[in-house]
Amino acid sequence: MRMVDIITKKRDGGRLSEEEIRFFINGITDDSVPDYQASALLMAIYFEGMAEEEQALLTEAMVDSGDRIDLSGIEGTLVDKHSTGGVGDTTTLILGPIVAACGVPVAKMSGRGLGHTGGTLDKLESIDGFHIELTEKQFADQVNNLKLAVIGQSGNLTPADKKLYALRDVTATVDSIPLIASSIMSKKIAAGADAIVLDVKTGEGAFMKTEEDARRLAEAMVGIGNAVGRKTMAVISDMSQPLGYAIGNALEVKEAIETLRGEGPEDLTRLCVELGSRMVVAGGKAGSIGEAEGMIQKVINDGSALALFRKFIEAQGGNPEIVDDPAKLPSASEVIEFKAEADGYVQSIGADDIGLAAMHLGAGRATKDEQIDLGVGIVLKKKVGDAVEKGEPLAEIHTNGKGTDTAIGMLREHIIVGPEKADAPALIHGDIQ
Amino acid sequence: MRMVDIITKKRDGGRLSEEEIRFFINGITDDSVPDYQASALLMAIYFEGMAEEEQALLTEAMVDSGDRIDLSGIEGTLVDKHSTGGVGDTTTLILGPIVAACGVPVAKMSGRGLGHTGGTLDKLESIDGFHIELTEKQFADQVNNLKLAVIGQSGNLTPADKKLYALRDVTATVDSIPLIASSIMSKKIAAGADAIVLDVKTGEGAFMKTEEDARRLAEAMVGIGNAVGRKTMAVISDMSQPLGYAIGNALEVKEAIETLRGEGPEDLTRLCVELGSRMVVAGGKAGSIGEAEGMIQKVINDGSALALFRKFIEAQGGNPEIVDDPAKLPSASEVIEFKAEADGYVQSIGADDIGLAAMHLGAGRATKDEQIDLGVGIVLKKKVGDAVEKGEPLAEIHTNGKGTDTAIGMLREHIIVGPEKADAPALIHGDIQ
Repeated sequence: MRMVDIITKKRDGGRLSEEEIRFFINGITDDSVPDYQASALLMAIYFEGMAEEEQALLTEAMVDSGDRIDLSGIEGTLVDKHSTGGVGDTTTLILGPIVAACGVPVAKMSGRGLGHTGGTLDKLESIDGFHIELTEKQFADQVNNLKLAVIGQSGNLTPADKKLYALRDVTATVDSIPLIASSIMSKKIAAGADAIVLDVKTGEGAFMKTEEDARRLAEAMVGIGNAVGRKTMAVISDMSQPLGYAIGNALEVKEAIETLRGEGPEDLTRLCVELGSRMVVAGGKAGSIGEAEGMIQKVINDGSALALFRKFIEAQGGNPEIVDDPAKLPSASEVIEFKAEADGYVQSIGADDIGLAAMHLGAGRATKDEQIDLGVGIVLKKKVGDAVEKGEPLAEIHTNGKGTDTAIGMLREHIIVGPEKADAPALIHGDIQ
Repeated sequence: MRMVDIITKKRDGGRLSEEEIRFFINGITDDSVPDYQASALLMAIYFEGMAEEEQALLTEAMVDSGDRIDLSGIEGTLVDKHSTGGVGDTTTLILGPIVAACGVPVAKMSGRGLGHTGGTLDKLESIDGFHIELTEKQFADQVNNLKLAVIGQSGNLTPADKKLYALRDVTATVDSIPLIASSIMSKKIAAGADAIVLDVKTGEGAFMKTEEDARRLAEAMVGIGNAVGRKTMAVISDMSQPLGYAIGNALEVKEAIETLRGEGPEDLTRLCVELGSRMVVAGGKAGSIGEAEGMIQKVINDGSALALFRKFIEAQGGNPEIVDDPAKLPSASEVIEFKAEADGYVQSIGADDIGLAAMHLGAGRATKDEQIDLGVGIVLKKKVGDAVEKGEPLAEIHTNGKGTDTAIGMLREHIIVGPEKADAPALIHGDIQ
């Protein structure tokens, strides 16, 4: 088998066989296929796409390129959630306790943030004492006992995907639905998920700017998941403005606690119910989305989700008092109100740019090795469609002095208030099962 | 400037600027652009093409990546001919003396053959004593005196093209009209041509299998040539069967001599007149193709082209007696007649496969370092459309013992005789000026 023939076949619109896909992925893993042939194939895939079957084969080959997390010691159906990334997205912190409280085991492997979208680990580490270093046995035991544990990424998972991603980044082949879908799905499967619920974001602050692209990506991932025997569902949700009000690590933990208490922002709460109900159904604890929604309302209303969050924090060494007294979370030295300059309605809140403003304050990393400031960030006071009067606060800037002027300038430019009435954007743009 | 942005622009169908094209080509030349980015761009060009202006810029950048042959010491307009490669194509050996005899200087840089298409240098070296090692001054003096000299490729011409070609070969990006056209034209321009006449082959034995592709390639090359200030014309000629009758080095020299004598195969003669007349016009020695054709007929009929060929051989150390006594050329120890097995008409003669059969006999190289056998080859006795009787020879196999059975098997399979009348294919499929 020769790589040039595989490239030619894809270039000419052919379907690659399992043998051909494995030749490619194994060659990437052991360096027997040179990067220049890999990048030519990636570009050919960019133009010619991949059939659903090819995408599933590619995903499985990437999973097999490295280790798989062995979670067989954990009882029940393991349901994982993946979001394609957005600003102010605190859903993981909320969904874990909610879904666990409904009886579905959540064994979560999480990452740190890079750029203007936050990482779940960073948020959790704003809880004093919280650590993510668990042995495999501790991890499994905690999931069996509590139904919820979170660890950092470990092991040599999907090395082929890592190499391909690095290559795609410098060869203009990132924006390919089959490549994005197989990359995401291979990581979820290698991490041991039995079932997967996907939150595909769309809008200005999302990787998929248009609803059509988001739908294509969601369909591709659901297709792959089901083809490789993992029950997979997807929700397409809005990221034209930040989700919820808070952007920043400790600020988002606080917002997660409010949401677990039933007092969170409407959009964040609604999205957690949409995703959580699917996770409960995928985990086999409810027969329908409607039934699962009822269970979720119950674990919020009766405090059991919040109680589970408290135990989860305690189990991983964190101070559970922050749940009842969020003032014990890191906070910024100064809170500046950013006020409306005229009466009107909020027309738009550029999600990307608000995320970048928070990054400038220190809430995110521009490069992997940067230190982040857990207490800083932005809290929106209005969302798109809200009426506002001149002088009313549009947002609070929580700052320790760094990047304040830059952040103010970005808010001024990207929170648009105008005289016309504006509609709040739809939160859920569709779902795929 | 970043290479990934250049790839993205082309991937999205944009036109590359001169600055971007030079960044790419200079980066290929000095290795600052890695191969994996180059191959991604090549594949994007494969899919998105290049505008005529981009192709001209790419050609000029490749010329500038290396040396240019300085032929300024040669008087007159230097006209070069290029063929896209075929089987039994002896035109260069014939055109040189004809065009030179019409007063147009021919300063030819030629290469060796690889695979089943012959190289002009190999053919010339079947003339005892002939050598191609001339100093620049000897080369220029000989062209000024005789109007004809041939040397081997020298100098560091178009190194970017060499690197790109090697990369294209292993990344399935050879078959791209803009890349083929700029590669050919950059080599011709670096070799010092003032004007260029192109013979673009089409048919089973050609790189361009369809007339449409051949026309697109011809148009691209003529577009580039004229855009960079070189008068360029193209003829699209047939390569569905071998050109002329002879395939093999000394056999083709003999056929060239016959053609210069006015006794050559009809198709080979006609193609030489078509190409030669354009070279004479491009060289400014005739005002029209018609006038140039008359001049060519004259230099054949009055023997002046053949006389010039004799002097040319002598000037480069070869034995001129072969012109009048071709038996002094290398010959094979055995000539086997390959006979028709039934009455009928020749339906097809697969050019590629006849070329490969000759290669098996030793007439061509499968790899660069192989020795070739100058005396062996195949001489067709019939061409497509000819009537043939059972037992009549279809071809002669000139062999020194090596590969005879393979060659016979290939002739049996690829010279098709059938009962239906067959038309000889048209020789000239079109021309582009």
